[in-house]
Amino acid sequence: VNDFQFHHRSQLRVRYADTDKMGVVYNGNYLTYFEVGRTELLRAMGIPYAEMEKSGYLLPVLEAGIVYKAPALYDDLLSIETTFTMERGILLRLSYRIIRDNSLIAEGFTKHSFISADTRRPVRPPKFFIDTLQQLPALGNSAV
Amino acid sequence: VNDFQFHHRSQLRVRYADTDKMGVVYNGNYLTYFEVGRTELLRAMGIPYAEMEKSGYLLPVLEAGIVYKAPALYDDLLSIETTFTMERGILLRLSYRIIRDNSLIAEGFTKHSFISADTRRPVRPPKFFIDTLQQLPALGNSAV
Amino acid sequence: VNDFQFHHRSQLRVRYADTDKMGVVYNGNYLTYFEVGRTELLRAMGIPYAEMEKSGYLLPVLEAGIVYKAPALYDDLLSIETTFTMERGILLRLSYRIIRDNSLIAEGFTKHSFISADTRRPVRPPKFFIDTLQQLPALGNSAV
Amino acid sequence: VNDFQFHHRSQLRVRYADTDKMGVVYNGNYLTYFEVGRTELLRAMGIPYAEMEKSGYLLPVLEAGIVYKAPALYDDLLSIETTFTMERGILLRLSYRIIRDNSLIAEGFTKHSFISADTRRPVRPPKFFIDTLQQLPALGNSAV
Repeated sequence: VNDFQFHHRSQLRVRYADTDKMGVVYNGNYLTYFEVGRTELLRAMGIPYAEMEKSGYLLPVLEAGIVYKAPALYDDLLSIETTFTMERGILLRLSYRIIRDNSLIAEGFTKHSFISADTRRPVRPPKFFIDTLQQLPALGNSAV
Repeated sequence: VNDFQFHHRSQLRVRYADTDKMGVVYNGNYLTYFEVGRTELLRAMGIPYAEMEKSGYLLPVLEAGIVYKAPALYDDLLSIETTFTMERGILLRLSYRIIRDNSLIAEGFTKHSFISADTRRPVRPPKFFIDTLQQLPALGNSAV
Repeated sequence: VNDFQFHHRSQLRVRYADTDKMGVVYNGNYLTYFEVGRTELLRAMGIPYAEMEKSGYLLPVLEAGIVYKAPALYDDLLSIETTFTMERGILLRLSYRIIRDNSLIAEGFTKHSFISADTRRPVRPPKFFIDTLQQLPALGNSAV
Repeated sequence: VNDFQFHHRSQLRVRYADTDKMGVVYNGNYLTYFEVGRTELLRAMGIPYAEMEKSGYLLPVLEAGIVYKAPALYDDLLSIETTFTMERGILLRLSYRIIRDNSLIAEGFTKHSFISADTRRPVRPPKFFIDTLQQLPALGNSAV
């Protein structure tokens, strides 16, 4: 599953609560926007994250990075383009591009690996997850 | 324990993340400030909320109200005056006043009752909680 | 415009960021959900809040109240039913019901009045706002 | 001022609002903790960020990165060790280590450069900022 790649695009509306006194989206809130992209990508892949947690698996963030290109503003309708790849069979890498109209607002990534909800120790990706990857078309979907 | 009352004052610094594009603290964040006041009051009473949860008790918010008097601004050093009272032996009522220098920024309240962390059903206040109330001076402390 | 009333229903998905260690939506985040309901209601009325601010008017929250009925959970798809009424020609009252499937999660209200973006002093509702109310059907819309 | 370096340590208490349903601090909130470290470092340097904004200068985040080492938990008392360096005379680089007791919770960085509050265009660091750097001891302070 190492060459597996999946793309998804979702949208969100910037809330007043997301902004700060600079009049733009607060820097930390982009990680919440990344979460929205990741959640909707997993749902589109057929493995909603909520169900993964119910099956006893968590996907904590190990590392994150963001490059801020242009400010997002209140009430902006943003597109989040999310790409998922597997690394070394155990590491999930998500990369994100946040777009308004045709301009890039921010891009970044998060890395995750599975842990057991019970023991909180690292575990290999669950079988249903690997099976799903193998059944999906290998290089992206039509959403992007 | 029905006439029990306890006061506490704590302080916090307004963060950039707390503000919105109006240049003031976002209305929803006052409930987080109330949380800080409540947490520090419980710690001052000798029953830190973190330990209550470890003992299997949760204190969810049942109701909340806020009146906004004047905007709090970035980097303000705010005082939170919190008063705790018991109602009908089962309901915890916290009231809050948020102060900057000598002016009132906001005031409000939250109501809580105990639930079991396991069953998520209402339970009576635990014995260690009642015992603590009975050992504390009945009408406030010196912090205010 | 005192008997004016307008209803709107919008939806949102609970984010992981919205939850707390109790496993439910943090109490303060309902005020952000109310904001979403209010924003989408104003957009449906033809006066997006973003445009109001560009015209020099702000609508800060003067007062808010929430009654929590049942916990909202991660990934829940919530409906926000928002009702707008004018009081005494100057006060905007928004009331909210947050629904999951057919059960009530929370209900509450916020009160607002116009201030000038420049002076930050109270002002009467702007003409375009009153005109819009008078052109809309007096008792609600088909969205609810 | 290129070899200028300044260290500062501040503390904060993890709030319930900061946690998520995994029972740990939500990944995006570390950027708010970084903000606290940065704000208190600038205050210790004698140039509070609030005053910089009043002088017409903003310091938006251009880039950020975080490595999550161990979860921070509700009510943890965290230390934030912040190091400030100038790069190429125009870029501010802040690096952060978040510590609980003696264990590393997370580390990361943010990059910033000055913009004018009016024009929102990049500007050189203001004179009072450069002057302050030149008057401070060149390699750190006693706080760490």
